[in-house]
Amino acid sequence: MLCKNNNLMTILEENNELKKMLFDGNFGLEKENVRVDKNGNLALTPHPAIFGLKEENPYIKTDFSESQIEMITPVSNSVDAVYNSLENLQNIVSDRIRDEYLWPNSNPPMLPAEEDIPIAVYQDPQSASRLYREHLAREYGKKIQLFSGIHYNFSFSDEFLEALRVELDCKSSLQAFKNQIYLKVAKFFMQNRWFLLYLTGASPLYLPDFLNSPAANEVSRETSDLALKNGISLRNSHVGYKNKASLHVNYESFEQYIASIQTWIDSGKIDSMRELYNPIRLKNSHTDQSLAGLAEAGVEYIEIRSLDLNPFDPNGITKEILHFTQLLLITGLLSDSEPFDKTHQEQSDLNEDRIAIDGLAKPNMYVEGAEISFDEAANKLLTSMEKVATLTQNGTLLHLLAEQRDIAKHPDKTIAAQILANSAGYVPFHMQQAKTYLDGSLQNAYKLIGYEDMELSTQIVLKSAVTKGLAIDILDRAENFFRLQKKDHVEYIKQATKTSRDSYISALIMENKVVTKEILAENGIAVPRGQDFSDIVAARNSFAKFADQAIVVKPKSTNFGLGISIFKDAYTKENFEEALKIAFSYDSSIIIETYIPGDEYRFLVIDGKIAGILKRVPANVTGDGIHTISELIDDKNLDPLRGTDHLKPLEKILKGPEETLMLSMQGYEMSDIPAKGQLVYLRENSNISTGGDSIDVTDKIHPYYQELAIKAAKVVDSNICGVDIIVSRETIPEGPHAIIELNFNPAIQIHSFPYQGENRRIGDIIIDFLFNIK
Amino acid sequence: MLCKNNNLMTILEENNELKKMLFDGNFGLEKENVRVDKNGNLALTPHPAIFGLKEENPYIKTDFSESQIEMITPVSNSVDAVYNSLENLQNIVSDRIRDEYLWPNSNPPMLPAEEDIPIAVYQDPQSASRLYREHLAREYGKKIQLFSGIHYNFSFSDEFLEALRVELDCKSSLQAFKNQIYLKVAKFFMQNRWFLLYLTGASPLYLPDFLNSPAANEVSRETSDLALKNGISLRNSHVGYKNKASLHVNYESFEQYIASIQTWIDSGKIDSMRELYNPIRLKNSHTDQSLAGLAEAGVEYIEIRSLDLNPFDPNGITKEILHFTQLLLITGLLSDSEPFDKTHQEQSDLNEDRIAIDGLAKPNMYVEGAEISFDEAANKLLTSMEKVATLTQNGTLLHLLAEQRDIAKHPDKTIAAQILANSAGYVPFHMQQAKTYLDGSLQNAYKLIGYEDMELSTQIVLKSAVTKGLAIDILDRAENFFRLQKKDHVEYIKQATKTSRDSYISALIMENKVVTKEILAENGIAVPRGQDFSDIVAARNSFAKFADQAIVVKPKSTNFGLGISIFKDAYTKENFEEALKIAFSYDSSIIIETYIPGDEYRFLVIDGKIAGILKRVPANVTGDGIHTISELIDDKNLDPLRGTDHLKPLEKILKGPEETLMLSMQGYEMSDIPAKGQLVYLRENSNISTGGDSIDVTDKIHPYYQELAIKAAKVVDSNICGVDIIVSRETIPEGPHAIIELNFNPAIQIHSFPYQGENRRIGDIIIDFLFNIK
Repeated sequence: MLCKNNNLMTILEENNELKKMLFDGNFGLEKENVRVDKNGNLALTPHPAIFGLKEENPYIKTDFSESQIEMITPVSNSVDAVYNSLENLQNIVSDRIRDEYLWPNSNPPMLPAEEDIPIAVYQDPQSASRLYREHLAREYGKKIQLFSGIHYNFSFSDEFLEALRVELDCKSSLQAFKNQIYLKVAKFFMQNRWFLLYLTGASPLYLPDFLNSPAANEVSRETSDLALKNGISLRNSHVGYKNKASLHVNYESFEQYIASIQTWIDSGKIDSMRELYNPIRLKNSHTDQSLAGLAEAGVEYIEIRSLDLNPFDPNGITKEILHFTQLLLITGLLSDSEPFDKTHQEQSDLNEDRIAIDGLAKPNMYVEGAEISFDEAANKLLTSMEKVATLTQNGTLLHLLAEQRDIAKHPDKTIAAQILANSAGYVPFHMQQAKTYLDGSLQNAYKLIGYEDMELSTQIVLKSAVTKGLAIDILDRAENFFRLQKKDHVEYIKQATKTSRDSYISALIMENKVVTKEILAENGIAVPRGQDFSDIVAARNSFAKFADQAIVVKPKSTNFGLGISIFKDAYTKENFEEALKIAFSYDSSIIIETYIPGDEYRFLVIDGKIAGILKRVPANVTGDGIHTISELIDDKNLDPLRGTDHLKPLEKILKGPEETLMLSMQGYEMSDIPAKGQLVYLRENSNISTGGDSIDVTDKIHPYYQELAIKAAKVVDSNICGVDIIVSRETIPEGPHAIIELNFNPAIQIHSFPYQGENRRIGDIIIDFLFNIK
Repeated sequence: MLCKNNNLMTILEENNELKKMLFDGNFGLEKENVRVDKNGNLALTPHPAIFGLKEENPYIKTDFSESQIEMITPVSNSVDAVYNSLENLQNIVSDRIRDEYLWPNSNPPMLPAEEDIPIAVYQDPQSASRLYREHLAREYGKKIQLFSGIHYNFSFSDEFLEALRVELDCKSSLQAFKNQIYLKVAKFFMQNRWFLLYLTGASPLYLPDFLNSPAANEVSRETSDLALKNGISLRNSHVGYKNKASLHVNYESFEQYIASIQTWIDSGKIDSMRELYNPIRLKNSHTDQSLAGLAEAGVEYIEIRSLDLNPFDPNGITKEILHFTQLLLITGLLSDSEPFDKTHQEQSDLNEDRIAIDGLAKPNMYVEGAEISFDEAANKLLTSMEKVATLTQNGTLLHLLAEQRDIAKHPDKTIAAQILANSAGYVPFHMQQAKTYLDGSLQNAYKLIGYEDMELSTQIVLKSAVTKGLAIDILDRAENFFRLQKKDHVEYIKQATKTSRDSYISALIMENKVVTKEILAENGIAVPRGQDFSDIVAARNSFAKFADQAIVVKPKSTNFGLGISIFKDAYTKENFEEALKIAFSYDSSIIIETYIPGDEYRFLVIDGKIAGILKRVPANVTGDGIHTISELIDDKNLDPLRGTDHLKPLEKILKGPEETLMLSMQGYEMSDIPAKGQLVYLRENSNISTGGDSIDVTDKIHPYYQELAIKAAKVVDSNICGVDIIVSRETIPEGPHAIIELNFNPAIQIHSFPYQGENRRIGDIIIDFLFNIK
């Protein structure tokens, strides 16, 4: 009994502060998918090494089987945030398993012989995790362990619960109050879970060799698979992953709840609390997960375990269902408690099994001890949920509830019905979904959803951090400042590449072009020799000094290549002076420097090794003899990696004055149709930010230049360094070249998502470097 | 003979390019001073340890005696630059020897018994330097080795010499040409040195026990010292530091020059080339200083050795004499050569000795073999020098020559005459000069002359670098970027405290106040609780949240205390909004945080140790019952350490609107006369940059706060860190306090030159840290 025996709905109605906090809460999701090969066979490969030890990575582990990946989101304080985390994990895992796929159904794919199903392997072959899985294999068989699903963890916000406790004038501690609250919510969930199962059940279809004995109302299909006739969820049915006997617990008080479970353990029906396969569990993350631990520490959150993987959603669950489930739990909090003794519990189990096996037929439901029609039962629940949504004036939820009401009316709109309706067959249908989802994940590989406001370089490093199981704290989003931790090892990082591994002065050296050039030159590294002038007379007088070499005359700070004159061959004093005049018309200072013929390359040097090498090519299109330049630009800009404002790894090519000018200098207009194979440049400069192409040449360029870049980074003592080199011919060593710049904050997305070439996984390289991961 | 037998004056007249380069050259000075105690006794203390090993410090060594400091400037390309270097060395050495003084005369001070004069001590007691000095002591006696003087090293610019060689159509190599040139110049110098001696001789006075036998025309004076009657330079006389026999060399050609010296060595008259105590030497710094080395490598520069210390100049020599000497050498280059055989050499030696012993009587001089009057001889030389000055239209030089002409006419205007004219006596006079010069050096201790455009912190570190004998390269003056080197150990430094010893991320953490606060708070360190706002509306809406506490409103990244409002007591929404407006006018983000009562302290932590602690007191004056606040400010601003624009360690107190407002808040006006002892604040903020006082409390504040500062630096992994702590009562541990900021680029001049308290020598601490000097 709650302290003040008031109706909570009434209290909430009158307390706006409480009402505001009602939907505050903490969310966590755990999702399992088995890995399959391209034909839908269970993958027999080991858990990918990139994820590190499954004992240590908190986000990406295995469940029962080595082939069964479990993705665990961090605890989030909103549905959006937790869903983003799940989506990111889905994208990351999909990206990293490549030649394999994530099987999108709770029922297993094509399985090998029972003995060939691999149990998860741990560092310590005698670890508790391993031994427990071996026990499960013996006790229940391996195949049934491959049922995969989603666990939904939820807690109300502490502020809300404390405010509620005060409002109810409760004398008990907050923890005792929580125990009471969550027990009430759990009971309500047990009573009403049948409807959530109706909505989310998604395992009516399975393969003939999965079950050892046929399920009730099992039917064979033309597509060589089996279906539960009118069924919704094999996984949640009595043939699913359940305790052998129904183990009812006592919901009267927290103490009685604990005592009742203790009885089952004492009787040997279950080994420990975690073997009690209830659809909802009371949990505390700060304990050893033992019953005694829970009894001692009290309930921190509840875990819902009955959600099937939704094969129609890339992430196995929709955001709508997350909201609906939260509303269901809140409704449980606010509703008056109904009795839930053994009989009621048996009836609720029966409700669940009827939905699982026969849900599409809308079987009768037991509600408050009476058997009533499915429609009546559904209406009763949805009505009480609507009251809560109305109370908080939550239009989105009301709309959502209207949709579920529609699904309640029309079983053919359930997920299960849609799965059964698909004619492709169990394996082909799910493999098609898996492949589509992989494509989507790869298209989003460059970004971390929910963090798109941060720089792409930062998103890439954060993704690698998740991949490798590091703890992440964002310290200052706007500044791209974050902290990573692996056990006791902490690293602070700003903008992906500003780390503890470079000294402050090293960054400052690179920031200062004069000092950088001086140090490089002292170390025998070619830099463009040159001189600054802010006085045209002095510049004119330097003619003799430069007359015998190819030079560039340019304004000191200019963009778009304006005001630049290049003299590759002999030139007169008049040519020279004309060039000075032009340059000075753009800036009060000009530079005359040696002209180095060639293309611009970015060498990314990390830890004294080449991490990636890009050739930067100015924005361009290649003619096909059919389309205009303008059309060719449009076509090239369709690439999903091309965006604007640095939100994507490549930038769209613009059709601005600079591009038009560049075309006209070559005798083109935007409406011209270049010949097939004709390369047309839209820019003089090769920056990626003005639509340039990034071509990965890491494996092509001569090692001479690689050694040069490594040396340049070394002389300024830099461990993460972008070295820009002009190279005349990339495959010929010791050709004309010059280092034009060292960058202390090199972009990494250009190497991870180049226009041409492979993903060099710079985020991984940085993290491995920072955390000494071999 | 020069290649084309032309008159060089004529060539120069016709070649403007050559004329422009004529005064280009490289200069170096070496100056010796013996150290004395406050009574004028030779100091018997060891060479100060702060200068490191005399074998290694290229700027500050000892000469013959352990008590005889030698200052060696780096090679500079202008008279101004070399003079600045000398002045800096003089200031540095003076500052560091403190309870001792630099004796400002070439003749020694009061000496102990011969056997107690300490010969310079080296790491290796058998080192060549030590053995050579022991040889000198045996050969010449120790006392005479204490003659101190100035060596002037000069070379023409290579560009000039090469252009001259080409103009003269010389077929010889540049080096052969140089050998010829410098031999010509040296010969001219030998012929005319008597006049330079007349101008610069400054050792006519000495103490009775100095010479073992009386000098000619020696007279006793009432002041218990001895004088050369009409004499100018004991040091340059025949009783000075000379070879026992006149060793003439052959100036006909470089080969003959070498051969003639070899003869003296072979005959045993001298031990090696360096024992040939000629007034001018031909040298090459890239050799082992042997005759064979010089013969092989050729002449690089010439060294003039006859300059006495000028006791009327703090630096022992005037800039005018540096210019005059250069002009003399140039005149030697351009003049037609006169014969200089043995007879001429003997006559030139006689000239020198006559000036040294009897110069004030203007003795006859031998010029071109004939004995003529002093006036005639001086006129001849000055006229030829004037021709050179006229050729180059150098008005300054012409003016300088007019001055020297005047001195030539009036012997009483010579330095020597002025020394003789002083009635205080040899020791008292020179001790008074020494003390005056020390005061001057200490007043300039905060700056490095010639580098005043760089930050004070940088100047201080550079001074310490000179003190400790490190090689210095200024890489980017405007950016205060420089490089230090000690043997193979190179350190790059920007702005004194940005070094290789801090990681890049550590600086970035400190730069970000939000991140810093978060990390400090996580580590249990008290920080002001607060909040950031980048939106003024959101900031306004936070009024209720902060209304009941004392707060500070400030721009997120601020300097010099600008834009900060402090509310210690109740304040209105209007006050609050006004403060927001002010803060937002300085930055797009602002911080509102709890105000911590107390004073602001800056803890400078270097290498995990406290380097200095300052209390910062807002600009203030203390009443005397007589003067107005305005007058008290003027008086306080007279402190030579107070300046403007951060050019000095303290800033002048202004009388602007902020100060007037602050006064009015206390009920004062500028024209009020505060009572005696009444402290009146002119500023709320305690920044030194707005006239605040810096009070060194390193030895006063409770260790609790010192440990706190060290811990704060440690948690952000910073090795050079300014920790700002508000402390309520500095002697009481664990009192109210909060760390308000960590600074990654802390000012160091405030600890080195505080308003009250001692110089904490932060430059030394930084260099010792960077170079692992114990």
